Formats: sequence, structure tokens, C-alpha cells
Amino acid sequence: MEPIDSLIFPRWIIPVVPAGKRLLDHALAIRAGKIVALCPRQEAESRFLAKENIALPNHVLIPGFVNAHTHAAMTLLRGIADDLPLMEWLNEHIWPRELRWVDEHFVRVGTRLAVAEMLRCGTTCFNDMYFHPDVAAATVREIGIRAALGLIFVDFPTPWATSPEEYFEKNTHLLQSMPADDHITWLLAPHAPYSVSNDMFEQIGDLSARHKLKIHLHLHETQAEINESLDRYQQRPLARLKQIGLVNDRLIAVHMVHCDEDELTVMANSGAGIVHCPQSNMKLASGFAPVKQFLDASISLALGTDGAASNNDLDMLGEMRTAALLAKGVAGDPEVLTAEQALAMATIEGARVIGLDSVIGSLEPGKWADLVAIDLSAPETQPVYDPVAQIIYAADRQQISDVWVGGKHLLADRQLTTIDWPSLAGEVADWQIKLSQPL
Amino acid sequence: MEPIDSLIFPRWIIPVVPAGKRLLDHALAIRAGKIVALCPRQEAESRFLAKENIALPNHVLIPGFVNAHTHAAMTLLRGIADDLPLMEWLNEHIWPRELRWVDEHFVRVGTRLAVAEMLRCGTTCFNDMYFHPDVAAATVREIGIRAALGLIFVDFPTPWATSPEEYFEKNTHLLQSMPADDHITWLLAPHAPYSVSNDMFEQIGDLSARHKLKIHLHLHETQAEINESLDRYQQRPLARLKQIGLVNDRLIAVHMVHCDEDELTVMANSGAGIVHCPQSNMKLASGFAPVKQFLDASISLALGTDGAASNNDLDMLGEMRTAALLAKGVAGDPEVLTAEQALAMATIEGARVIGLDSVIGSLEPGKWADLVAIDLSAPETQPVYDPVAQIIYAADRQQISDVWVGGKHLLADRQLTTIDWPSLAGEVADWQIKLSQPL
Repeated sequence: MEPIDSLIFPRWIIPVVPAGKRLLDHALAIRAGKIVALCPRQEAESRFLAKENIALPNHVLIPGFVNAHTHAAMTLLRGIADDLPLMEWLNEHIWPRELRWVDEHFVRVGTRLAVAEMLRCGTTCFNDMYFHPDVAAATVREIGIRAALGLIFVDFPTPWATSPEEYFEKNTHLLQSMPADDHITWLLAPHAPYSVSNDMFEQIGDLSARHKLKIHLHLHETQAEINESLDRYQQRPLARLKQIGLVNDRLIAVHMVHCDEDELTVMANSGAGIVHCPQSNMKLASGFAPVKQFLDASISLALGTDGAASNNDLDMLGEMRTAALLAKGVAGDPEVLTAEQALAMATIEGARVIGLDSVIGSLEPGKWADLVAIDLSAPETQPVYDPVAQIIYAADRQQISDVWVGGKHLLADRQLTTIDWPSLAGEVADWQIKLSQPL
Repeated sequence: MEPIDSLIFPRWIIPVVPAGKRLLDHALAIRAGKIVALCPRQEAESRFLAKENIALPNHVLIPGFVNAHTHAAMTLLRGIADDLPLMEWLNEHIWPRELRWVDEHFVRVGTRLAVAEMLRCGTTCFNDMYFHPDVAAATVREIGIRAALGLIFVDFPTPWATSPEEYFEKNTHLLQSMPADDHITWLLAPHAPYSVSNDMFEQIGDLSARHKLKIHLHLHETQAEINESLDRYQQRPLARLKQIGLVNDRLIAVHMVHCDEDELTVMANSGAGIVHCPQSNMKLASGFAPVKQFLDASISLALGTDGAASNNDLDMLGEMRTAALLAKGVAGDPEVLTAEQALAMATIEGARVIGLDSVIGSLEPGKWADLVAIDLSAPETQPVYDPVAQIIYAADRQQISDVWVGGKHLLADRQLTTIDWPSLAGEVADWQIKLSQPL
């Protein structure tokens, strides 16, 4: 018998790759944090000798979600200002508070709160953009989740840096002092076309090419962004970035709500990825992204919740449901973005867009054991004709019972194993008092 | 001291009427199933002597949700066929199974499953349209929830009746043999303009006027429905109903996805109510209802989940969130349908549309104690700057800890008190096997 660490026996396994597969009464074997095999229950029992056997008789096992666009620490600002236009929300509520309050402690507590929520919601890897990414990295390592962290660039002073030189200095220093590893992938994160100059974009392009780093930025989120760019640069933002040389397979374009036919071709030919954030786009009334067109053009399309300050949660189950429902409504076609495709967006496509699809995003031997078990025995998900339909259209986050990252059991029967929630809740409460102070 | 039955001490109370109120550290007093008072904690403690005192220190207390459009028993068909066009879904998957399988037992088990889910999701009253409404009524009374039940009319044979005469016979018999009471309100439920003849609509109009019964029907759900009506009657469905005399304050028009300016005026002047079902409309790609216009015209606008066979859940928290997000996206205005308004839609406006706003829908002395407590202490709803924003944009159904209907504690700390779930789950499993058989 082959010695391994864990053998998991769920009711169903959905490996995501290959697409369309539903494995009934199979087992998943883990050794040294990686998936060793998926095989029928009896074969697993005779082949493997596991240190622990985990029975999940009512559960479906899927790859962990890749939340492809977050601002994790902003979770501390969840619900502080809702039902407002984007610029009023930013200018009058978010930015003044960030300027006054964001420091390393804010990022540590906010990121911990976000990771607590994400693990409880089945996210095993997130692609983040926020200040003090070094603090986020330390937090990610402490807790044991996985993240792609953006080194932030903005063309004005923020809590991270005060001049273009300082952004480059701090970010390149970080790249050297905290090298990437199995849990942390570094990306470059220029905030948006309207907040980053051509000079800065050019240097970011050089850095990206030199270090083979992906570039994570907000792009074509609102019509106002496009209009402002036309005024200032006589170009739409995508055209401007293309001219600077940034539209290639290292680009991660978040939102792309507005995308005409030529731009669709540019995106498809470039190999760039898109991150769709439907709830954020609806809440801020940014518009509806042309999801059917992205899929038809075979563009890599990932899914993100955006930050909890605007969204107001980090729940990929809810985001998949919204994406699947909205794409049908927008296209006027109920066959667009099936449950199957929504699950792929939230897993393997997310991994692909951030460049980690060779190691995560599906349940395949050799990949990290980043796993989520969802209990479908609740009234809300009974009966079960198809577990994938139940995941997308009926299950909710509290049915996620167990989560593993690299084979480590970070959520065990709804309990976080590497986060002390009562102590964290106290820190969150302290921050709430500070952040509630009048501006 | 005034003797009462229960005194509840939540962290916040949102009475919904008057609008905008958030009562911090207040108590709600219940006697004989009705709300006696809402008052500051100390006043309550000195004024009332309660048989039970209930502390809910992390919870927000709100009126129970009124789910204004359901097909409860169809919950047994949840997820049996997804990502399909409406007519293919109906003709090839739903109707053949209904014809073969729907009987009193199907309706009893399906309605129990639906009510189990609804209570766990905070719904205390639902407006239903399905076959065997007598069985649904008996189930509602057994469990103790509240419902408006539609007496179904369709112009072809169904499991309920085979001829127009039989529909009228069975439905009028039911009205007399099972009179309405505090838990059951009868409505007339002609299925839709495309499935009910002019003759039948005329007789339904007479019955509605004679017995003062509301009329609950699908209306202007799809463009195809409107086109078919133009072909067949040279009128859009609303115009046809108006000519028959059905467009008045007894009309409950479900969906109204398609509504031109003249129709908006007709609806506003008639006093008719509209039930918005955003998730169903998205999933079936029916279009986007003009919610901003309905609100601007001061039309009574309620919220419904539609049946779980198409939706695929009966979760009003999710439906409120979708409604609030989608209305902003469709109107291109992030200030449309605020969290406050979404909560009103799901409570007092639902009660108004089904004609029960004098007895339920808000937390006001004299009304039934139909209450929902939501625990906001989970990481996903921390911090709390505004409990209403948390309910609409961040909370999920499993944070609903307690539900009362008419002062009766039907969900106590997540446990259903009047439904034996393990036994019901067995019956659901049996039905799943039958319904899975090839057609």
C-alpha cells in the first residue's frame, strides 16, 4: 500500500478539468500538500494507506475558488457608505478615510478579516491590490492561504508612497526582500488609467518584462474613465496601454465593462486576461460587461468580488450566481454562461489569468490540494439532480464545511484553524470605532 | 407590571414603518401573537412582565419577509433542468413531469420542503400559485407559517382540473369549504395571458369582484408573450386585461419585465401591484424590469423569488441583494433602489401588494409578531456601520437565527420547531428518485 497523508471520500468530486466530469463515490488522495490521485472509492481503499481518512458523505468536492480581484484590507470599510456614485463614494467617503487611517496595522487586521471571510467562503487564492502588500504577504503566510499580491503604483501620494520614485523603490525592494514562493506570487498593480501617468506605465512595462510579472489594473470600468482618457490622451485607455506596449499576455484587465468590437479583437489577440466583477459593476452602476462576447472570443475570463467596501462581501458562490444570471439577462439568452462555465471561471480560469493554472485551479494529480467541500444536505439544496447546478444556483457560503490549501486543513467543519476569530473580532471592533469618527 | 408573552432584546430593531428608523437597544413586546410595543430596553424592563425574555445581543430584528411570488411545491424540481430557454424548459422538462407526477402527495412534500427553506430564510408569508392549493393550505396551517394561496386557473387540463367548468367548480368549492383565516388568504391565480382565455378571465373578474379577491398572474414576462398576444388578440396582454376589466387595485402583476410608458401610466392609475422577480427574469433571459420607473411612478412594488425549479432558491435575502444591485445597473444610477427600499419591498410592500399591510409587513404595535432575527456577528458582516446595509449587501440566509410567525417561534436558533426535517428529507429523497426517471 502506498503511504499518503489524507484520503477524502466525498459524495461527488467535480475536478473542473476535464470539463463536464462528475465523479460519484470517488476518493481524492493527498501527499505532501499535492493531489496524488482521484479514483473510485474501492480502488483508493486498496491502494492507499492514509494518515487520515475523511468521510464527506453529503458533500461535493471542488477546487478552491480563485478570487481574481480584491482589495482585501478594505473589508474594514464594509458598508460604510452605500448606494452612492463611484466618485462621490471615493472622494467623500473612502479616500479621506484611507488617507487618515490606512497604516500597517489597518492592512494587517483588514487582510486577516478578509482572509477569514474568504476561507469560510471557499476561496483558496486571491489576487489583491492594496497598500502595504508586504504586510498582506506576511498575513497570507501566517494563515496559510495563497495569494497573488499587487505591488501598487499610483501617480499621487498614498499611504504606500509619496512620489513615483518612492513607488518604484519600495516595490522593487519588496520584490528582492520577500521573494515569491508557493504561497505568494507578486504582480505589478498600477491602479487605473486615470491614476497612472504614461511615464509610470512605461517603467511598469519594463519591470513587467524584465521580471516576467503580470500587470493587474482596473480597465474600462466606467464610461467616465473612457471619456476622461479621450479628453486627456485623445485615446481610449486600452489603445493608450497598447501604444505603451502593455497589452499582452501579462495583462490582467479588471472590469472591461466597456469593450467595443475592435477592442474585443485586441484583447483576444493579445492573450490578456479579463476579470469580471458583476456585483461591483452593478452596485456602482458602471454598466454590464459583454460576457457572451468574451466567451465567444475565447478570452480568459476570471471572476472577482472586488473589495468588500463596495461589494459588500468576498463570496465567490454569490459572485458565480450573479455572473451566471446576469450574463443570460444581458445576452438575452438563457444558455449563456452555464453553471459549468461559471464554476470554471471561479477556479481554473482565475488560476490561468493570474498565471498559476499549472499548479492550482482544478483537481488534477500533481496540483496543490486546494480544495473546498460543500455540504448539499440542507433543505436549500435538496433534492440534488446535478451537484454543479446546486453549487451555482442554490448553495450558500455557510454550506462550505471544509477548505484545504496545499493539503492543509484551514477550515475544518466551519472552524478556522489558523485564525483566532474572537481575538480578530476585537481588533475589528476597535477599527470600527476609529473609522466611524466624523471626517 | 403588564403581563405579556415575550420580550425580545435585539441589538437593533428596524421596524421598516416608519421608514429610515434604526432602534438601538430597544425591546419588542409580544402578547397573544401580536406586537404590543417597541420601546427602549429600560422602559420595557420596568413596564412588562414577560413569560420569556429573549436576548439577541448581536442581532438585528426586522419584519418577516413576504415572498410575493412562489410556486412552492415545485421545489421538488429544483435544478432538474438549468440554463435552458423558457419554452424548452417548460415543454420538455417541467410540464411532462408535472403531468406525470403531480398529485396531492407531491404538493404536500414539495410545499413542506419549500416552507422549511422559507422559514430558514426569513420568509413568514408567501404568495403561492400551484396545483392542489387545498393541500398547500393544510400544510401552511400545520406548520404555522402564513400564506396567500392562489386558486389556479388554466385553459387546458392540468393535475388540478380538466375543463374550465371543473376549475371554477373546484375553486369556488374550496373558497367555501376552507374559509380564509389569520394564516390563509385566498387569491385567484389565472396562470398567464397565454394560458387563459377571455371567457375564463371574464368569469375570474366576476369572482374577484364578488368575493373581493386579488388576482395573481404572470404578466408581460417575456417579449414572446407580448408578440403572441398581438398575433392572437391584436392587443398587448395588459390592454387585453384592461378591456376585460381586470386592471384595478385587485391585480397582482408578476414580472412586468416589459412595460412601455403608457402601460406605466395604466399601472400607476389602476392601483395594481407589481411583483419583481429579478433572479428568475435574469436566469430565463426574460429582460430587465424598469424598476426605477416603477418606483418613480409610486407603484406598489413587491419582491418574489419565483419557484425554486427556475430560480433555484426561495431566499429573499439573495433576492433583495440582486434587486438592489440590478436596478442600479439597469438605471445606470447607483442611487436607485437603496438598501432601505429593498428591505421595504421585501416586507411592507409585499404585504401591501397581497392586501395584508394592515396586519403584517412592519413592526408596529397591533400587527402580528412576524419577526426575523439576523445575527451580524459573523466575519462576513463585520464591522457593522449600518445594519440595513449589512442585511441587503452582506448577510446570508444562515445568519437568520430566529423566526416568529404570529408570535410563534418557528425557527429557534436555526432549528425548525414544527417541521421534522430528517423525516421530510426522506420523503424528498423518494420523490427525487421518481422525478429522475426518464420521461
